[in-house]
Amino acid sequence: VLSKVWSSPAEAVGDIFNGATVLFGGFAGVGVPIHLFRALARLPVNNLVGVSNHCGDGEDGLALLLKQKQIGKMITSFPDHVQSHQFRKLYAEGAIEVEMSPQGTLAERIRAGGAGVAGFYTRTGVGTAVAEGKEMRVFDGQSFLFERAIKADFALIKGSKADTLGNVVFHRSARTFNPDMAMGARCAIVEVDEIVEPGSIDPDDVHLPSIFVHRVVKAPGVVPNPTIVDLEELVSGAGGSGLGWSRAEMAKRVAAELNDGDYVNLGVGMPTLVPAFLRPGVTVFFHSENGLLGMGPFATPESVDPECINASRQAVTMLPGSSTFRHSESFAMIRGGHISVAVLGGYQVSEKGDLANWKLPNQSLGGIGGAMDLAANVGRIIVVMEHTTKTGEPRILKRCSYALTAPACVSLVVTNLAVIAVTPEGLVVREVAPGVTMDQVVQATEAHLIIP
Amino acid sequence: VLSKVWSSPAEAVGDIFNGATVLFGGFAGVGVPIHLFRALARLPVNNLVGVSNHCGDGEDGLALLLKQKQIGKMITSFPDHVQSHQFRKLYAEGAIEVEMSPQGTLAERIRAGGAGVAGFYTRTGVGTAVAEGKEMRVFDGQSFLFERAIKADFALIKGSKADTLGNVVFHRSARTFNPDMAMGARCAIVEVDEIVEPGSIDPDDVHLPSIFVHRVVKAPGVVPNPTIVDLEELVSGAGGSGLGWSRAEMAKRVAAELNDGDYVNLGVGMPTLVPAFLRPGVTVFFHSENGLLGMGPFATPESVDPECINASRQAVTMLPGSSTFRHSESFAMIRGGHISVAVLGGYQVSEKGDLANWKLPNQSLGGIGGAMDLAANVGRIIVVMEHTTKTGEPRILKRCSYALTAPACVSLVVTNLAVIAVTPEGLVVREVAPGVTMDQVVQATEAHLIIP
Repeated sequence: VLSKVWSSPAEAVGDIFNGATVLFGGFAGVGVPIHLFRALARLPVNNLVGVSNHCGDGEDGLALLLKQKQIGKMITSFPDHVQSHQFRKLYAEGAIEVEMSPQGTLAERIRAGGAGVAGFYTRTGVGTAVAEGKEMRVFDGQSFLFERAIKADFALIKGSKADTLGNVVFHRSARTFNPDMAMGARCAIVEVDEIVEPGSIDPDDVHLPSIFVHRVVKAPGVVPNPTIVDLEELVSGAGGSGLGWSRAEMAKRVAAELNDGDYVNLGVGMPTLVPAFLRPGVTVFFHSENGLLGMGPFATPESVDPECINASRQAVTMLPGSSTFRHSESFAMIRGGHISVAVLGGYQVSEKGDLANWKLPNQSLGGIGGAMDLAANVGRIIVVMEHTTKTGEPRILKRCSYALTAPACVSLVVTNLAVIAVTPEGLVVREVAPGVTMDQVVQATEAHLIIP
Repeated sequence: VLSKVWSSPAEAVGDIFNGATVLFGGFAGVGVPIHLFRALARLPVNNLVGVSNHCGDGEDGLALLLKQKQIGKMITSFPDHVQSHQFRKLYAEGAIEVEMSPQGTLAERIRAGGAGVAGFYTRTGVGTAVAEGKEMRVFDGQSFLFERAIKADFALIKGSKADTLGNVVFHRSARTFNPDMAMGARCAIVEVDEIVEPGSIDPDDVHLPSIFVHRVVKAPGVVPNPTIVDLEELVSGAGGSGLGWSRAEMAKRVAAELNDGDYVNLGVGMPTLVPAFLRPGVTVFFHSENGLLGMGPFATPESVDPECINASRQAVTMLPGSSTFRHSESFAMIRGGHISVAVLGGYQVSEKGDLANWKLPNQSLGGIGGAMDLAANVGRIIVVMEHTTKTGEPRILKRCSYALTAPACVSLVVTNLAVIAVTPEGLVVREVAPGVTMDQVVQATEAHLIIP
């Protein structure tokens, strides 16, 4: 009887070789094949090309491989996370190479590698640093960037349950990059909590068909530890800069823009407050880039599901009518224009609606994450940010001075001082916060404002 | 409370307009939104661009739209099916335009349209009629063809069950193109057997998330009527040309080439007999392009599941450890090189391993189906065919005279006379059928044969 079950993580990763390209599954601590990482860390293997959305957290898992200098290059969307200090240290020393890829582009490149597609054209990254050295091409009047497939030697992924033939199911947001990565590797190694006999999983319920899986290892799961958030506390703790709207009031103003039936993606930071202020009778569906649609309120310590997090690693609940899916499908929703509205934080917005929100001038790498995919592809982008920097510099500029996320993408800007629409004629002030004068808004803005 | 439920098929399709591009779901009579087709056939709408793998069966559904001349152009992989007589009549009259797209390319083009990908490079179709007028490009030493996304106005699809928010699940091979098509349309209209309340479907079990679905209609299903096949009867009825191996013996010879653990795709015709002859102790996994992996024996009248068919419309069973998936994923398995072996019928094979098997000289259109995707991308292609045509013309030629499926793709040819391997040095005779002389093989072959 055929079986893909291997006896231990050490055995399953034993032939990973120097210089191999390895896809590392998981996202924000969920769906991470921690035992496979640890087994690989015990091998004298180095110069690996690692592909992972993040670049490791703390000291375990991918961070351990980085600490031991086993990885020569990372292909990643979000290297500059505060918890990726092992990676940041290596990068500062010049001891590791980095290729930045927007999150959706990364997922699609991995899927393409697995699907026999050599490369594809996406709008994500057009007009940004990501486009450097890449082919641009116009289709139907819009510019697209050419992105190559990633083909890998190995994938290390984590599933919930597998049968002995290699069919895998995932739980909630632990699906993430894992199925795409299995597809994209010549040898996909899956760590699971439970191994069952063939026939235990209904054919229609398989998330990752056996053909994409080469080795299965049972390893007792390490329970993720997502952040428990109390939204009311978050809202009441959300102050302001003193002038105009508080952060909570800005979130409320954004919430007023959401319409019944909208599919909404919320960025990190202030956008997280928006669900607290939905208008009565308005139902919107919240999308999280890591593979959730129909998120409900934050989980409480009692209702927490450790494998159900949003893209900010916060424990969330799922409402009736919600769904989960893999990363490539999540970004198909974004890239394909299916998301109605994205609410994003911003560093700078230009007169033409250019957005800069992924890299500060003092950051060597920054974190693209899903920001470029959202900015370039979602029809309505609402940016919520303080009107000026902490030192009083305007953030609404003639031209952005920081690295762009996407050109001409913003529809509306909500700041502590005003609500400003980006129109073909220019920036139009739609509303001024109570206690703020139009003159104050104009003074705090570098760009030209149209005052109706 | 939000609901995407519409009261009737007529209401749901009411705004489909003249000239609209419409994706038509289903495959070989399964997963077909028959009530939506009928409703559309009652509207005074014409000049539609239809996208569908087949071009209608008999008189109902898509055939009805064709009969009424509501469709001005079809984008399709398999127009020349014997049951598509309404389409064939129109085509013969010059009353309909056709764009031929290999099946996997078609599925990927639809997915790309839904995923915001403008176009992609595939090996499928390189060196064939499909490549005419398209950009070719070399990546890593291999030629690829550029294919554009299909963006549609509407999709008409069929699901098993939906909730009122539009989350859909499918049963067995009824998934097929349906989820990809929902993604690819601005307005996806789903006909289902059953509508349930949100929360009735576990988020992890949703096959098509609500964001891709715009209208849901409950319409009592029409039960498909797949072909019931008795394999033993088929085998015993499979004669031969009189010389050398019978068709059953050829299938047995092919079966001897399959190894434990192989993932195998079987073409129509003689390849269908192969499972009857698997060597004892050898387990292989049969893949069907319409979204099944791990097919078991043909279904009996007692065990038949009307929504579980192979690509030849034959009722099949699913073994323990099997899985189902959408068309784009099925062809990711093929295009990505995950299928170990494909056994295909053939019209002609050349000295260099070129294969012609989709169009006879007397056919105006032919049927590409999945043949080009398989031939161009599967590592080991075994062709099983009679050594000569019925009139005694050789089929193994210096160069194929029929339209190519893919150049230099064949590994092994099994005919009634011999087993011939395609090697870098040329065609090598590996085995001659009992009662056949080497001289007879050479006489019946135009190509040069190396006799070891």
